[in-house]
Amino acid sequence: MISKNMKELVDKSAAISALFTEGPRLRKLLGDENVFDFGIGNPNVKAPISVNETAIELLENMDSLTLHSYTDGAGIPSVRQAIAESLNRRFGEEYTGKNIVMTTGAAGGLNVILKVLLDQGDEVLTFAPYFSEYDVYVANAGGRLISIAPNIPSFLPDANKLEEAISSKTKAIIINNPNNPTGVVYDEETLKKVAEVLNKKGKEFGTTIYLISDEPYRELVFDGVTVPYIPKIYGNTIVAYSFSKSLSLPGDRIGYLTIPSTVEDFEDVVYGTGVANRVLGFVNAPALQQLVVARCCDEKSDIAFYDKNREILYNALISYGFECAKPQGAFYLFVKALEEDDVAFVNKAKEYGILMTPGRGFGCKGYVRIAYCVARAVIERALPSFEKLAKAYKK
Amino acid sequence: MISKNMKELVDKSAAISALFTEGPRLRKLLGDENVFDFGIGNPNVKAPISVNETAIELLENMDSLTLHSYTDGAGIPSVRQAIAESLNRRFGEEYTGKNIVMTTGAAGGLNVILKVLLDQGDEVLTFAPYFSEYDVYVANAGGRLISIAPNIPSFLPDANKLEEAISSKTKAIIINNPNNPTGVVYDEETLKKVAEVLNKKGKEFGTTIYLISDEPYRELVFDGVTVPYIPKIYGNTIVAYSFSKSLSLPGDRIGYLTIPSTVEDFEDVVYGTGVANRVLGFVNAPALQQLVVARCCDEKSDIAFYDKNREILYNALISYGFECAKPQGAFYLFVKALEEDDVAFVNKAKEYGILMTPGRGFGCKGYVRIAYCVARAVIERALPSFEKLAKAYKK
Repeated sequence: MISKNMKELVDKSAAISALFTEGPRLRKLLGDENVFDFGIGNPNVKAPISVNETAIELLENMDSLTLHSYTDGAGIPSVRQAIAESLNRRFGEEYTGKNIVMTTGAAGGLNVILKVLLDQGDEVLTFAPYFSEYDVYVANAGGRLISIAPNIPSFLPDANKLEEAISSKTKAIIINNPNNPTGVVYDEETLKKVAEVLNKKGKEFGTTIYLISDEPYRELVFDGVTVPYIPKIYGNTIVAYSFSKSLSLPGDRIGYLTIPSTVEDFEDVVYGTGVANRVLGFVNAPALQQLVVARCCDEKSDIAFYDKNREILYNALISYGFECAKPQGAFYLFVKALEEDDVAFVNKAKEYGILMTPGRGFGCKGYVRIAYCVARAVIERALPSFEKLAKAYKK
Repeated sequence: MISKNMKELVDKSAAISALFTEGPRLRKLLGDENVFDFGIGNPNVKAPISVNETAIELLENMDSLTLHSYTDGAGIPSVRQAIAESLNRRFGEEYTGKNIVMTTGAAGGLNVILKVLLDQGDEVLTFAPYFSEYDVYVANAGGRLISIAPNIPSFLPDANKLEEAISSKTKAIIINNPNNPTGVVYDEETLKKVAEVLNKKGKEFGTTIYLISDEPYRELVFDGVTVPYIPKIYGNTIVAYSFSKSLSLPGDRIGYLTIPSTVEDFEDVVYGTGVANRVLGFVNAPALQQLVVARCCDEKSDIAFYDKNREILYNALISYGFECAKPQGAFYLFVKALEEDDVAFVNKAKEYGILMTPGRGFGCKGYVRIAYCVARAVIERALPSFEKLAKAYKK
């Protein structure tokens, strides 16, 4: 009696969940010490101390009625202004609070902006491999997600394939940079080519193609890499940001949309996002969390921890004979499976206590995602198992 | 370039917003002391002290990584269990944590349960006057809201009209008890008649009609009135609850769904709500707030404050000749306009510094909503203006 659409999602989700309930089953079978769970992208570094300190300070000293009140649908004006000023310092922009809309994480932000932009039947493009929730987010707003085949082995966007995929119905493209699941950072050169294609095809079809840049991993980059600031490359860009990773606050559900004044129909888009926050049932991003991130938005969690995890695991896997584009961002490795069927490979790995996610869930068969945001000891103890897994395929 | 659907919502919303930006305009014109804003249902009573104390205790003592982690889509198991036990104490139920799904306020909860239940084109019924957001919530999930004409002057559900409105496409009915905008509490007798009709018509059409009871105002009742616990009257009831009013935490976005085991397709509905939380972009109800309400769910804000406001305002308005069903819940009066056109009446009231909301926004023309959740002094100072307004129509 639940809806057909939800029944499908439930069945699909049960299959995904089964991957994770494997943890307890394996632990029983192999012992706690011999199970290595690389399945979930849950930060394993504490929030900066100032986060809790700021929250306590607000709870102790701010007028309680104001602190717990509804906020504007678009967020608390002083919070929007503080975020704008932080972005101005970092990227040399000239934003005001009007360019910022506070959202219930990036997931909330993406649903909000898609609701604002999409008419029934509109198409949204994305480059595979991609975060699998984009499918339902786009469908929630009446649109259809079309994924562009992966560009192996670099996993960078392929401008030629993009050009072929754009139609008169293309309303937007979602880019995730740094990328989940590959950890690859899209460079400026590549993004400029993407922008050229969007401009060219937009002119050809007489349409405007919005670029939605999903950037929860912006601060998680290594090797001194810079993540290009896409609004400078393509004016019609809206950025969805989250503090889930940069401040390790995934449970708090707090993020924002940046809507530069260069975005087409700027006034309506900004006003629409506030309305969408309300009508989608978010109402407002959690008020306490808005006030906290306004004061802590220039800080970040201990990125060095993830960097070290990456170095240890990447170097070891390569030495065992695995193939993998060296990730420079996020906290994932996207590794080529040692047999064609990624699900079979994931199942084989379980025999060695290793839990990973099949690439097909991200629109890219034949690969697996390893989330290395785990305790250091888990990585160190897992290495011999990875080595044995590789050897099992060499026989 | 924003979507047609959103453009409509933006235009409609701008009209509503205009009502509220009237405040500053009027204050400039008439002076701060002479403007009385009864437009918005924002609690004006502080959260119980234990709320902030509990939040501080968690921030100081709980492991920071756990505190800020993603939670299960359906909520933290111990929180779900604590809420279940509280309901068992209050209503003699035998719930476990499995019957409770934590949501981003009742607005989040309603969107989640509608997403779970509705197929494209399904119909959802509600009794006018009703909270106007139900229209978009139902539309978000692909359904169509059909309102049943108001039952004047009692504003109680009319079972005969309900019977006429049910079709083979009726998937659910939304009931808001105590009611926004009337403040009327639906009694047990009336709800039993509603249940009878739902059972009868369900049999006739071979369908199951879910009853969704939206109860953010459950604790805000006066005169010793009891709000019937609808799952006892109709087994196929899902309750959407929020702590926005009972604990004065509207900005915190925290509430829950109660899904009794008697609900048809119970397992799928519960599992589906967790999935819906995720795919709609809520991901999980804010983690800190989940933990806070688990410990504070048996408390409530100072209801006596609203009761006194109600007494003063209701008695005065009746003495000036206004007509109004005496509200026994929520913090609204739903008053008959003194001319046919409720919008014209609202505009006339502005000349006296009084801001109210036209009834047509709630599917009931000819009435206005007065939100009396304001400072006592505002009510006391407003009385002479209400009296002058009444007199202006007697000339």
